[in-house]
Amino acid sequence: MTYRVAVAGAGLIGRAWAIVFARKGVPVCLYDVDGSTLRKAPEKIRASLEDLEAAGLITDPAAVMAHIRIEPELAKALDGVNYVQECGPENVEVKRRLYTDLEAAAAPNTVLASSTSGIVASQFIEHLSHPERCLVAHPVNPPYLIPLVEVVPAPVTNEASVALTMQIMEAVNQSPILVRQEVQGFILNRLQGALLNEALRLFRDGYVSAEDIDKTVKHGLGLRWSFMGPFETIDLNAPAGVVDYAARYGPLYRDVDIQRGNDNPWAEETLEALDRERRAALPVSELGERQAWRDRRLMALIAHRNTQQTS
Amino acid sequence: MTYRVAVAGAGLIGRAWAIVFARKGVPVCLYDVDGSTLRKAPEKIRASLEDLEAAGLITDPAAVMAHIRIEPELAKALDGVNYVQECGPENVEVKRRLYTDLEAAAAPNTVLASSTSGIVASQFIEHLSHPERCLVAHPVNPPYLIPLVEVVPAPVTNEASVALTMQIMEAVNQSPILVRQEVQGFILNRLQGALLNEALRLFRDGYVSAEDIDKTVKHGLGLRWSFMGPFETIDLNAPAGVVDYAARYGPLYRDVDIQRGNDNPWAEETLEALDRERRAALPVSELGERQAWRDRRLMALIAHRNTQQTS
Repeated sequence: MTYRVAVAGAGLIGRAWAIVFARKGVPVCLYDVDGSTLRKAPEKIRASLEDLEAAGLITDPAAVMAHIRIEPELAKALDGVNYVQECGPENVEVKRRLYTDLEAAAAPNTVLASSTSGIVASQFIEHLSHPERCLVAHPVNPPYLIPLVEVVPAPVTNEASVALTMQIMEAVNQSPILVRQEVQGFILNRLQGALLNEALRLFRDGYVSAEDIDKTVKHGLGLRWSFMGPFETIDLNAPAGVVDYAARYGPLYRDVDIQRGNDNPWAEETLEALDRERRAALPVSELGERQAWRDRRLMALIAHRNTQQTS
Repeated sequence: MTYRVAVAGAGLIGRAWAIVFARKGVPVCLYDVDGSTLRKAPEKIRASLEDLEAAGLITDPAAVMAHIRIEPELAKALDGVNYVQECGPENVEVKRRLYTDLEAAAAPNTVLASSTSGIVASQFIEHLSHPERCLVAHPVNPPYLIPLVEVVPAPVTNEASVALTMQIMEAVNQSPILVRQEVQGFILNRLQGALLNEALRLFRDGYVSAEDIDKTVKHGLGLRWSFMGPFETIDLNAPAGVVDYAARYGPLYRDVDIQRGNDNPWAEETLEALDRERRAALPVSELGERQAWRDRRLMALIAHRNTQQTS
């Protein structure tokens, strides 16, 4: 199947999505309601492509760029595309109006996929004539480095739209998961939140410093998790697999669960103490430099992963 | 400072610890109460060293091996050492008796550090004359690949013993964290348990497959966590750092927390369903082969990390 896609919204996420599609040779129309944002997009995309080239992740920025067309008219941007990646603001009312416009410009079976991290699709598509081709395809930032995409159909979404979204994500080397029912926070942020909640409680209660929490994950848990995930990790950590593991460690994890009532790990004084430790380690003025380091490490890690066998 | 260490227990963990010390040139006496276990140890250590050489993580197995001495007499094994890494069975009564023997053979200020993953030191050292030099130094398996060590003093432990343990761990390139008070499960397993508890609930309630949970972590959360940890990750994910991040995402994570009462995520029927999915993906007969793959991936990841700047 050949894909032609449009990306609606040329901010940080929209530009990153354009790279994801274009680097696999999929023609992309990039649109934004704001002319100034749209005009600035090519230069910013070019800068990201140069970073990727420097990290050895792409070889020809100009060839990638050639697949991206800038289009200031919505009707033209959506003409002939089978998939739209919507990257508008995180606001239910704004999204409702945007979807009215997208529906007016798109063919009735064009898939409309939202990048929203926090709003389930059923909250902004129910007024449409064809809501059955709408769903969420939530990326992690930036999607050209972090491949996970959470595909979350609404109750009204049809199977063909889910299937096309999964296919196109696989085709551009993303790693889509299917979230079978709408759920607050989807999967990634719920898992992240569960770990952060326990981490904040251990920090707050004085068992450990914030730095040592980070060490525990980066020099302990995170190594295997970065190529196996939590279930494969425990499945391989007991002679007979996951049920055997649960017999050994399940009671401990259940105890941890029972010990934690609903005391609030996100209280102001906890965050102030965490901020004191983080700001002593890294002043706000150095956040930008450290973010650039993070991006270099992430690119190097992806390049490393690309050399490894997945099975 | 020069270190001389003994490892008491020549099973899987004891042999791995011997490699950790010896590869940094620290003389190790390896002891086991069981003569047969001890006699088999050198050949097994040699095999592990060859794997490390093949992965490019060490260059000279024989040079590492030369720092390891096998010693069947406890008194001789502990003679002149300043640190003992105890790797006995995970049983309170067995550990109590073992510590009686260790105390009889060790100088009064030799640090006695336990590898236990589940028993706090105060449960097996209180009968000693010199319990103040005892603590837990809990590794992740195998410690020569996963550097995290949880250093957990008992209330009776003195500061000098904690300081020496932290120093020796740093000296042999491990990554020690200080757990300031004894706590069930220490830090790593509490964090792992918190994420697993939420993962099992999402799986059990039909939102997502086990495979997709693993994808969410390995292709999403685990990438940054494998070199930054959870607090540095969120600190770099909002313009003004962690408090700014908490203002954006804290309410979501708190909601997840409130939604989860104490329903048991480790129930038998949940584990059976998880086992069905895992066994369809990987029969028990293929666990060994996949564990060998895991070890190759882990060695390659460590080799990759060794090429990267930490700041």
